[in-house]
Amino acid sequence: MAVVLRFAISTSRFIRTARVAHLATADAAGEPLVVPICFVFDGKHFFTPIDEKPKRVAPANLRRVKNIKENPRVCLVIDRYDENWRKLCHILIAGKARIVLRGSYHQKAIALLRRKYPQYRAMSLDRRPVIMIAPRRTVSWGNL
Amino acid sequence: MAVVLRFAISTSRFIRTARVAHLATADAAGEPLVVPICFVFDGKHFFTPIDEKPKRVAPANLRRVKNIKENPRVCLVIDRYDENWRKLCHILIAGKARIVLRGSYHQKAIALLRRKYPQYRAMSLDRRPVIMIAPRRTVSWGNL
Repeated sequence: MAVVLRFAISTSRFIRTARVAHLATADAAGEPLVVPICFVFDGKHFFTPIDEKPKRVAPANLRRVKNIKENPRVCLVIDRYDENWRKLCHILIAGKARIVLRGSYHQKAIALLRRKYPQYRAMSLDRRPVIMIAPRRTVSWGNL
Repeated sequence: MAVVLRFAISTSRFIRTARVAHLATADAAGEPLVVPICFVFDGKHFFTPIDEKPKRVAPANLRRVKNIKENPRVCLVIDRYDENWRKLCHILIAGKARIVLRGSYHQKAIALLRRKYPQYRAMSLDRRPVIMIAPRRTVSWGNL
């Protein structure tokens, strides 16, 4: 069951406007992987597509997808780097992920992704998997 | 044993000039964690300090430190985001990490960190742990 996150307005804005996040997964043996991702947040779930940016392997064989099938626990971080370290901040989101191939969540994710990233409007995302993350807990640090 | 990485000049420059990386660890049960880090690379190992940026807990109780003690496998990503997605790139480094508290690696790491980040010159890093990562394999994507 997804936890409904109640964020301060500044935190919501930080999440909404961030263009990139970093997603950590781990395989069944505990080998971690981290990748930069494009993402959207609908107020309840985070979504990131397996998009058409060049990949070496088919979507189902992508390590992040295989890891999530083996071990659904994931961690997402959204952060800001600045040379003035008083401005550093991040929010960590620990949650459970699943791969969504079709249906209402998939449609919603694609629509939100295309609204946020004009780059996706020319990509055929409709038949590609989306990773859906239900947050379990969050930790924020610094002034979001 | 650390693998000696032979990078193209452009890759070396990308790694050397990146100000932030993202480090994924996982605990013994396979729960992943990702955090943004400041880091240096000496041509053989990556180093990141447990610095004085405010933490909720003592260095030894920090989750990344506990995770590495339980499970030394880590994954590091250095990436560039750009709205022109043809400029996106990243390099993934999978390796084994250990916590270094003193000695020649620790001294070298502190010196390199202070050279790269002026912010560290005013911080007393000398008695704080450093995470040392021996790369096992790397994957790069996009035009570094």
